[in-house]
Amino acid sequence: MASPQPHGTSAEAEHRTEHQRHHAQHQARSVADHAAAVTALLEPLHSVHRTEKLPLADALGRGLVADVRAALSLPPFANSQMDGYAIRSVDVPDGGAELGIMPPVPAGASPAPLQPGMAAPIMTGAMLPAGADAVVPIERAVPDRFLPAAAQAKEHATVWLPPAAAGTFVRAAGSDVQAGATALAADTFLGPAQLGLLAALGIPDVTVYQAVTILLVTTGDEVVEPGRELPPGKIFDSNGTLLEAAMKQAGLHVRRAGIATDNPDALRTLLREEGAGTDLIVTTGGVSQGAYEVVRQAMADQPVEFLHVAMQPGGPQGIGTFEGRPFLGFPGNPVSCLVSFEMFLRPVLAALLGAPAPRLPVRARLSQPLTSPGHKHQVRRGTLKADGTVELQGGESSHLMHALAGSNVLVHVPEGVAVLAAGAEVEVWML
Amino acid sequence: MASPQPHGTSAEAEHRTEHQRHHAQHQARSVADHAAAVTALLEPLHSVHRTEKLPLADALGRGLVADVRAALSLPPFANSQMDGYAIRSVDVPDGGAELGIMPPVPAGASPAPLQPGMAAPIMTGAMLPAGADAVVPIERAVPDRFLPAAAQAKEHATVWLPPAAAGTFVRAAGSDVQAGATALAADTFLGPAQLGLLAALGIPDVTVYQAVTILLVTTGDEVVEPGRELPPGKIFDSNGTLLEAAMKQAGLHVRRAGIATDNPDALRTLLREEGAGTDLIVTTGGVSQGAYEVVRQAMADQPVEFLHVAMQPGGPQGIGTFEGRPFLGFPGNPVSCLVSFEMFLRPVLAALLGAPAPRLPVRARLSQPLTSPGHKHQVRRGTLKADGTVELQGGESSHLMHALAGSNVLVHVPEGVAVLAAGAEVEVWML
Repeated sequence: MASPQPHGTSAEAEHRTEHQRHHAQHQARSVADHAAAVTALLEPLHSVHRTEKLPLADALGRGLVADVRAALSLPPFANSQMDGYAIRSVDVPDGGAELGIMPPVPAGASPAPLQPGMAAPIMTGAMLPAGADAVVPIERAVPDRFLPAAAQAKEHATVWLPPAAAGTFVRAAGSDVQAGATALAADTFLGPAQLGLLAALGIPDVTVYQAVTILLVTTGDEVVEPGRELPPGKIFDSNGTLLEAAMKQAGLHVRRAGIATDNPDALRTLLREEGAGTDLIVTTGGVSQGAYEVVRQAMADQPVEFLHVAMQPGGPQGIGTFEGRPFLGFPGNPVSCLVSFEMFLRPVLAALLGAPAPRLPVRARLSQPLTSPGHKHQVRRGTLKADGTVELQGGESSHLMHALAGSNVLVHVPEGVAVLAAGAEVEVWML
Repeated sequence: MASPQPHGTSAEAEHRTEHQRHHAQHQARSVADHAAAVTALLEPLHSVHRTEKLPLADALGRGLVADVRAALSLPPFANSQMDGYAIRSVDVPDGGAELGIMPPVPAGASPAPLQPGMAAPIMTGAMLPAGADAVVPIERAVPDRFLPAAAQAKEHATVWLPPAAAGTFVRAAGSDVQAGATALAADTFLGPAQLGLLAALGIPDVTVYQAVTILLVTTGDEVVEPGRELPPGKIFDSNGTLLEAAMKQAGLHVRRAGIATDNPDALRTLLREEGAGTDLIVTTGGVSQGAYEVVRQAMADQPVEFLHVAMQPGGPQGIGTFEGRPFLGFPGNPVSCLVSFEMFLRPVLAALLGAPAPRLPVRARLSQPLTSPGHKHQVRRGTLKADGTVELQGGESSHLMHALAGSNVLVHVPEGVAVLAAGAEVEVWML
């Protein structure tokens, strides 16, 4: 284990810094390549040993482990789409017909077969009697209301009905999903609609990937816990709150270990003790090419790579393992942290474990021009309007927390694009 | 209290049904008017008596009660955007200059003033020394790396620097937010970025509206709990799972009271007992014009209105109070339930309490034509693609749970529009 470096005094650290700057300038890794590296790091989480069976009510926000086949069709039986009369379509000629009335069919009943020349009062969702193939809505019947049971019980109660083609106002069995079909594919994100579908299929519990637990550590001599006194030169820690909330909102479990100061030994001890039982360590700060990079120093003897991703903000990144545990080192500015999470952690976990839900890319038109470093993928913050335009919030700088808080989208400017005019179409991700 | 109506046998119920059908056909309430009615019903939740002060880590997904003013500027002090040298811009003429080197300024330090003719090594985020007004990145310096402290301690250590205009690579104090300004407005939804901003301002806890607790009851003789045996004519209850998940995902607290059968007295007892302590009762099913509408029957002596909203699906709605407690009766089909939640409950609560987050409207182009009842606001389900087109999933029928589970947006076709061509622009809400 390397001994901690006094601030900026070691020629070896100098050399490393120089080497890394060279690397950063000339061999910045593409966003896609870094995402692939994060995928390789976290691939072991995609394991049958990390699954659990949960009741539907507890499975919200998890990813499905295996395909789910429909054991029954939906709807399970042909049923009525309206309150009305179930008929055999052949019983009613073009001019309409007067039909006898059978006992009414409420939803949930298993009705007797429809006799030829008869009509059965039927409620929305009720099973179509055998023989019936169409429903005439009550509004089109004469009389246009259901007879009281007493009246109907009289012999020869009849109703006049207009014709209806076979299938009219009938929800056919299997019209939503057929028994035996794949209802949900493996790795599907389980939101309300997917859980509702499982319930409709009669499935009470579901096998999902376990939630990922992350140890989140903010580093830096300059950051102070909110609520404390703020000495000159220091700033309040927003990275911890921001990332913890983003991770929790994404369904991840977060263990916070407060703020680590710029002492590499103390940071190593903290990661060792607090990291136990977690799936991933995420730090913020201490990964760039300055002289006081505590995370770099703490990881000196670990298989951790510090590199520059061709992305703005969020370029400096650390990736590897700390004593065998997956580790990601995000940069120290809040916007960089959020962008790192959205660009690397969310999509990679979504692809591996079906959760969290990936961001849905949307097209929008810039309401103002922008410039971007052509050799980097730039991620700006903006407000998407109802008219499909996006207004940039704040500049490209990664410290603009207030501008981020006023944004509802991330705006992507791909590598190779240096200028975009007002009105240009961009991809945005809704936050 | 009205005695329960035997199924479809009462002349009085007949009359009411007839009256209501008339109402539904000729006086359907607009979506906006119904949303206003729901707002009036839930307005009492917007109260100082329903607020609480929470640590930031517990406030995710809540709405802010009052404006938050910034007690400090962000950044609190001018700081460096790069690792480099802090200079007085006037000290470096067009051709560059050799400057003496002061002690380095790490992030978090409160540096001594910059002496004229000197440069201070400075790290990203570190406070600019008094007198300094620009930063030259280390890459542009000669030498282009920081000197070891030992070398620097030698007298007359110097660095050659190119010129830099005042403000270059400096993050000015207050460039993100000025002390005294409104950082967040009342009723703001507290997501990760908003909580991160509060942390950056040093605020450790925040006053938010209490979470809304909903009693959710699925009604109908035809619905069976998932996992049970399914008798002929019955279907599994998906409404309960779907709505519970949608409500939880929106940060609402949900109490499930299982499935109420079509006995109005039993439903009343259940609502009375399970509703205690909840802010709102939501039922599904039993609100339309059929002969067996248990929710209508249970509410017969309550100030509850059953009406038709000019919306497809989700037209039949109940609204009022049950023994003084706010009540909403959603229709019985799952898609109708979700649409009711998204059209009425989510936006109304968002407007009253700042949470849940409202859906962000996005423009998309239809990849296929559609038809809609011109006198209703139609809500279709679809899949939004990266190219900005939306593909409709399933038809307009409200029973298509599998199609809903394959969708990522709701597609809005406003009242007054009966046909849209492929390529037409529509408003979609991302789910």
